[in-house]
Amino acid sequence: MTTLAITGGQVLLPDITVARADVLIDQDDGEILEIGDDLAGDVDETLDASDSLVTPGFVNGHCHVAMTLLRGYADDKSLDAWLQEDIWPTEAELTPEDVNLGAKLGLLEMIKSGTTAFADMYFMVPQIADAVEEAGLRARLGHGIVTVASDDEEARADAREGLEVARELDGRADGRISTAFMPHSLTTVGAEYLDEFVPQAREIGVPIHYHANETANEVAPIVEERGVRPMAYAAERGMVEPEDFIAHGVHLDESEIALLAEAGTSVIHCPASNMKLASGMAPVQRMLDAGVTVGIGTDGAASNNDLSMLDEARDAAMIGKIAGEDASAVPAEAVVEMMTQGSADAIGLDTGYLEEGAPADLAVIDLEQAHLTPRHDLVSHLAYAAAAADVRHTVCDGQVLMRDREVLSLDADAVRTQASEAAEALVARAEE
Amino acid sequence: MTTLAITGGQVLLPDITVARADVLIDQDDGEILEIGDDLAGDVDETLDASDSLVTPGFVNGHCHVAMTLLRGYADDKSLDAWLQEDIWPTEAELTPEDVNLGAKLGLLEMIKSGTTAFADMYFMVPQIADAVEEAGLRARLGHGIVTVASDDEEARADAREGLEVARELDGRADGRISTAFMPHSLTTVGAEYLDEFVPQAREIGVPIHYHANETANEVAPIVEERGVRPMAYAAERGMVEPEDFIAHGVHLDESEIALLAEAGTSVIHCPASNMKLASGMAPVQRMLDAGVTVGIGTDGAASNNDLSMLDEARDAAMIGKIAGEDASAVPAEAVVEMMTQGSADAIGLDTGYLEEGAPADLAVIDLEQAHLTPRHDLVSHLAYAAAAADVRHTVCDGQVLMRDREVLSLDADAVRTQASEAAEALVARAEE
Ligand SMILES: [Zn+2]
Ligand SMILES: [Zn+2]
Repeated sequence: MTTLAITGGQVLLPDITVARADVLIDQDDGEILEIGDDLAGDVDETLDASDSLVTPGFVNGHCHVAMTLLRGYADDKSLDAWLQEDIWPTEAELTPEDVNLGAKLGLLEMIKSGTTAFADMYFMVPQIADAVEEAGLRARLGHGIVTVASDDEEARADAREGLEVARELDGRADGRISTAFMPHSLTTVGAEYLDEFVPQAREIGVPIHYHANETANEVAPIVEERGVRPMAYAAERGMVEPEDFIAHGVHLDESEIALLAEAGTSVIHCPASNMKLASGMAPVQRMLDAGVTVGIGTDGAASNNDLSMLDEARDAAMIGKIAGEDASAVPAEAVVEMMTQGSADAIGLDTGYLEEGAPADLAVIDLEQAHLTPRHDLVSHLAYAAAAADVRHTVCDGQVLMRDREVLSLDADAVRTQASEAAEALVARAEE
Repeated sequence: MTTLAITGGQVLLPDITVARADVLIDQDDGEILEIGDDLAGDVDETLDASDSLVTPGFVNGHCHVAMTLLRGYADDKSLDAWLQEDIWPTEAELTPEDVNLGAKLGLLEMIKSGTTAFADMYFMVPQIADAVEEAGLRARLGHGIVTVASDDEEARADAREGLEVARELDGRADGRISTAFMPHSLTTVGAEYLDEFVPQAREIGVPIHYHANETANEVAPIVEERGVRPMAYAAERGMVEPEDFIAHGVHLDESEIALLAEAGTSVIHCPASNMKLASGMAPVQRMLDAGVTVGIGTDGAASNNDLSMLDEARDAAMIGKIAGEDASAVPAEAVVEMMTQGSADAIGLDTGYLEEGAPADLAVIDLEQAHLTPRHDLVSHLAYAAAAADVRHTVCDGQVLMRDREVLSLDADAVRTQASEAAEALVARAEE
């Protein structure tokens, strides 16, 4: 057995309290052996966590990681205009190599900011899986299906690709990669395709993940044409099951929150994207009160514009208070829970908890910073003051992905250089 | 003449465009001599800015810097409860030494995050001025006057202290410190004291700075008792002049926005504090459209919980879109202008512009970061993606306050240690 010890730190426990403890890891099976104050025995490798906080690796519940190539390309536009004028025309020019490089760039940023697991919806998913395998993270991947702009043949081919990705990539990278069936949204995929292909996804045994109730524009047509709210429409299609998770859930009414709570379907809250695209404010405290499992996601870097879950957690706490018109809404403990356990439970990955027997996925936050002084409350610091650059070590599946702020699984300089060149060429092609 | 050159970088120009240029500084008088692509002549000191963006030093338009001691001490509470239950009882125990240490801790964080100038309202202001002098920043300082909980004698003494601070500290630290007269707010200072002391402040020749229209609770009593909106009430007291600036302005109606625009009175927008205390969303785009000068401030670290203007600028862009229900509201260019020129103009300090003859106050942002790759748009990066830790050099008044992320004007380790000890002892006294 090869062992790794994280020594000298404070540890964020599953009940969202902090205690002084070391963490001992079995690297062969990637699990936590023991968490305690004075661990005995030989250790093969040690990561120093003195003056540091050891947290579960952050779980980014909804992303389009390859879109990192388009970070800062088009800002300050509403969702529809942004997609139609800037994003889709540029995405049409993406090559498989671009997708792989964009994913690697995003994964590099994730590792640097302490994220060890994520859910991702995109296309050319095998190229994303390759990047995940190389980078060493844990992921639930899916092919984003869109049928509205396609003829029937194209639409069915797209849906079949969604099934194939869900079937073929599941279990890759020593089990770090799992999959889901991912219709893009309830308005961009026709009901007939949902009715035909969702049952086939169930047979494969994967969750369904889709954008829902992100903007008011997405709700109105369903209410108008179908006479029911979008979540009721989704439930009719068999897409509101305990393993399923939606992204956004900004415009959910009380009946939909109750439906999600009863069904056990989870919501990934994407506060930065919702603010930047002016989509609205998700009723997060009301969802939590109703018992809905809520996780946090960054969405793509093009509508954020970063992939740091520490930024996203702060955004969630901030906008949660405005949405709830209550400063005690979405408190520090809640966002810290959401960015770890909430997202992990929502996307159905066994991570997000530091406890014996759990996967050894963790981040070590350097507390020796002016902006983290004094230390009245480390949970508050995690929610409101810690930043990506404070992450000093990142461990996933027992492997050290970053040690002392140096990423080991990817060549950071090469990834940045290659991704920059790819992004420049991509935009040049799109603007031709 | 001693000269400093910032070489190899991209420079953010006053029209919020970016160009390749070096910056040559006369350190003796602290001014920019020249900005150009190929500067000649001998240089005494050089700061490398290759792969970096040179920006004006950020200007924090509203702060209570000594409150950094209370960062994370009490979160997730509304303004009234937070002040009355946590902040005021603890502040009552502050010693002059505490205020000095809290200020130094906050100034350390400011230097690390590229802030070179700020406006600050607090008490024991001479101790804050000492910290500013040592740290090397530029500041407009004032004594926050509160009369509501005092008898007449105490109230008048407090107001006189406000006048004395405005008079005595103005011009200190080789002119880097200027002052203002700072009644805490329109509801915490009685009209009789405003009527008596504001004219005396005018005689000294300093601006008036106060919290206004921060919460709905502050607006209602004035409307009820006086029959006018708070800004009209303030104008009657002579507190709405071109040199004056208010903090927050969350609950401003159209008549008040028009009044501020016509008077030339500025507003410091504090988005993080407004969100964290659930105060509401300031109508920033409407103010900008009306021609109001708007700056950005962090407010105190206890309601934020950091002092990074890069975080604050991102917050301003994000919440500005939700407030305006428009993704094009408060765009990247606007927040970059507000965090530099807007704040500087609002608080009446000659900084915030990189041009010949301007004060040499600047920050150099390291662009070689995964989260700043690719580089489609550097103004977008500054607004949405850059973080405090990306600041590599900070220069104020021609002096290098931080070089290669090492703060030169303060002993970072000593400040953090002493401030931590002071914060712990302070809280122990308050909770006794
Ligand atoms: Zn999305
Ligand atoms: Zn304030």
